[in-house]
Amino acid sequence: MYILKDIASFIDAKLVGDVSLKINSLSDSSKAQKDQLTYIVDGKHKSDLINSNAGAVILTKDLLDDCPTNALVVDNVYLAFAKITHYFKQQSSHLNGIHASAKINSKNIANNCTIAEKVIIGRNCTIGANTAIEQGVTIGDNVIIQPNVTILQNTTIGDNIIISAGVVIGSEGFGNALDKQGSWHTIAHLGSVVIGNNITIGANTVIDRGTLENTQIHNGARLDNLVHIAHNVILGADTAIAAGVTIGGSAILGKRCKIGGGAVIASHINLEDDTIVTGSSTVDRHLSKGHYTGFTSISLHSDWKITQIWLFKLDKIVQYLNIKLKNLRGK
Amino acid sequence: MYILKDIASFIDAKLVGDVSLKINSLSDSSKAQKDQLTYIVDGKHKSDLINSNAGAVILTKDLLDDCPTNALVVDNVYLAFAKITHYFKQQSSHLNGIHASAKINSKNIANNCTIAEKVIIGRNCTIGANTAIEQGVTIGDNVIIQPNVTILQNTTIGDNIIISAGVVIGSEGFGNALDKQGSWHTIAHLGSVVIGNNITIGANTVIDRGTLENTQIHNGARLDNLVHIAHNVILGADTAIAAGVTIGGSAILGKRCKIGGGAVIASHINLEDDTIVTGSSTVDRHLSKGHYTGFTSISLHSDWKITQIWLFKLDKIVQYLNIKLKNLRGK
Amino acid sequence: MYILKDIASFIDAKLVGDVSLKINSLSDSSKAQKDQLTYIVDGKHKSDLINSNAGAVILTKDLLDDCPTNALVVDNVYLAFAKITHYFKQQSSHLNGIHASAKINSKNIANNCTIAEKVIIGRNCTIGANTAIEQGVTIGDNVIIQPNVTILQNTTIGDNIIISAGVVIGSEGFGNALDKQGSWHTIAHLGSVVIGNNITIGANTVIDRGTLENTQIHNGARLDNLVHIAHNVILGADTAIAAGVTIGGSAILGKRCKIGGGAVIASHINLEDDTIVTGSSTVDRHLSKGHYTGFTSISLHSDWKITQIWLFKLDKIVQYLNIKLKNLRGK
Repeated sequence: MYILKDIASFIDAKLVGDVSLKINSLSDSSKAQKDQLTYIVDGKHKSDLINSNAGAVILTKDLLDDCPTNALVVDNVYLAFAKITHYFKQQSSHLNGIHASAKINSKNIANNCTIAEKVIIGRNCTIGANTAIEQGVTIGDNVIIQPNVTILQNTTIGDNIIISAGVVIGSEGFGNALDKQGSWHTIAHLGSVVIGNNITIGANTVIDRGTLENTQIHNGARLDNLVHIAHNVILGADTAIAAGVTIGGSAILGKRCKIGGGAVIASHINLEDDTIVTGSSTVDRHLSKGHYTGFTSISLHSDWKITQIWLFKLDKIVQYLNIKLKNLRGK
Repeated sequence: MYILKDIASFIDAKLVGDVSLKINSLSDSSKAQKDQLTYIVDGKHKSDLINSNAGAVILTKDLLDDCPTNALVVDNVYLAFAKITHYFKQQSSHLNGIHASAKINSKNIANNCTIAEKVIIGRNCTIGANTAIEQGVTIGDNVIIQPNVTILQNTTIGDNIIISAGVVIGSEGFGNALDKQGSWHTIAHLGSVVIGNNITIGANTVIDRGTLENTQIHNGARLDNLVHIAHNVILGADTAIAAGVTIGGSAILGKRCKIGGGAVIASHINLEDDTIVTGSSTVDRHLSKGHYTGFTSISLHSDWKITQIWLFKLDKIVQYLNIKLKNLRGK
Repeated sequence: MYILKDIASFIDAKLVGDVSLKINSLSDSSKAQKDQLTYIVDGKHKSDLINSNAGAVILTKDLLDDCPTNALVVDNVYLAFAKITHYFKQQSSHLNGIHASAKINSKNIANNCTIAEKVIIGRNCTIGANTAIEQGVTIGDNVIIQPNVTILQNTTIGDNIIISAGVVIGSEGFGNALDKQGSWHTIAHLGSVVIGNNITIGANTVIDRGTLENTQIHNGARLDNLVHIAHNVILGADTAIAAGVTIGGSAILGKRCKIGGGAVIASHINLEDDTIVTGSSTVDRHLSKGHYTGFTSISLHSDWKITQIWLFKLDKIVQYLNIKLKNLRGK
């Protein structure tokens, strides 16, 4: 908890409002409550600002008149947000063995695991060698965790789960703000990962935690090896993701989607229920139910070179043809 | 070992034949013997069924007349197969230290390794810190395993091998059957991984074990970092796979193939000996010896947008031109 | 240190020059000094040979007349180079606990870490569970290393760094030479990785060490999860690489580049400062400042099939049109 005056000082903001307001946490603008701080990046989100119930809002000067609550006025909102996240970040300090406050209801726990404060592990679980579980992680019943897995702070895992070797769950999302000098400032990710029931996660797959909200993997999902699930992604129930897929931040996949191996789904993309994406495709727009594909079929290298030349000349070819046809017609 | 009557009960099948037949294992239809159970997914594989030497076959009602042996009749064969695999699955229970039954003929074994039942390690090997090796793994001579590696049940590794940090070998393949309700049922993978001699495997690469048969990496192969080798893949001798390549299930690569970084090879694809695939290509069909490429060359984003528009209008452009040309000719 | 006569014997070369010359190390032809051995693959690099200050050069017979120094004449230069690298390779033998020669100035070191000879760790660092650090690694101040990380020999890491779980730094590059029989001979990588200050590295990312020179990650860089950085890559200051990116050997990225998720950058490619590459693009040529894209947009699978057919017929379509137009004009 910080008072608003101190927060203003941390991020070098001009405070307009109640200097002594207590801020307990950060939240998205649409969900922020009276004890929470939020941010509005620019005028596009003015309606979010006007309707906000937040205790305070980080914003630029031009939006001050539309602010219904306490304001922290800065030049670069996203940078100020990045900076303040670190004040609300939970440190991980437990490095050795099983912490006394952990509640473990299973016997098959490898001796050399590292299990931190307030971890809860249900019944009939197996925790493999060298697995590290940070504070606040909750694991249900019948969960098998293979060796060399890392589960970071406050991740919630349901029942009947297989987590393969080398998996990392709850890693920080890839969010960074640029300053005037062109340097990056890391956003501390304060959300968690919530994993439902009856799910399998393949080897060396990584699932990032959310920025303020949670990354979510719903019941029955299937994840293959070497998959990347970015911060704030939501995978719907029974959705299957094959190996080597990269899913960008805040992408939302519906139920029963099937994503083929090596596909890339851009950030902030929505896929409706029952969307099928062929492996190796790039998903660069929202998709409704259906089967989609997007890659260049393989061909002999010599043919490919010719095809690529014409591909990039298509614009000129069409222009040329239009002129030619016009001329001919004019004859 | 299970008797057929019990198996019928496990998968809710109608048994036609010898209720007391002993089934020792599962096998592919083409290889199954008298003490083995196999499955025929649909009528396309009728000839496999007719020629099968299996002790029993899981199949649908319509194929019963063509079954030369004991039959387990179900509605959804693949789902029934998925369910029965779990009864033949080998559990891994060794979690701490080196098991008394392991035979280790090398001195350079990190203290905190976890080495399970009946593991055999040859001469002059180095096993790095935090490496976990499950039961039944066999490792030859002159094998260097870097830290944080996981080698799962029954993997066989030859001589003169380097396994880089973070590698996972023998993880479960990504095979799942759908039920009527649209939920996935995991197939327990009962095959292994067999790795020949003189091979290097790059950091954080993952090699899945086979479904019933083995995933195979032949002598002299080279695998870079972050490669995915799915279940039942066969990599021929001296084949080299650069970083970030995703190879789908049951793909078979011949000898001396070279696959560039970031390429994706679809499931069930065959590449003949000496096939070269440029990095980042998508291999969506069988390839014979030659050099192949399949991706869109990079261009200015603004040019790319125009190119993509014309690409998706090609069909209409050709139609339009045909009409125009016809009209002109008609003049 | 080896004398030239012995080196000639190791690689089966004909020695022309000073048999007793002491060679301390290997080096690139442009940088090699009097106590160093280098190699010239073929005639294309003749000017490098003529200007070389190396103590000795591995080369083919036809280049002998242009050699200003001692020569080791072989049939296959790259193969001879691959073989000799192993004589200069540093073995890693420390497997357990913290070596007495390590200088650690931080308290938060997990008990089960493995820290080898002459490792230096600065102030205010945290080293997570199961982390393995090989000999000669130097780590600055304020470095957080999460669990299950592997940092290999002689890596240098600056201040204010976050290394996420499962990361591997300093793994061997993917360099192999073919012999007459078509078998690969691994090149031992003798360079290191040098990581500057104020950098974050995402989970399960891999950074290879250089062949003879160092792989470099400059100040302020941001790397997401599951990224592959090959040997000898240079990432400029404040360059950001999103998840699942594969960067080939010796690629050089300037300052403030932004590479979207799942992109592939081919080996030996240069990107100037401020180059932006959209996610999932393939970078197959040098790029100057600008925003670039290269992939096929997603479409309905049925439309994609039609588009691909026309794409590969473009050459014939243009030919056909030219003939038709010619004929029409001829009317």
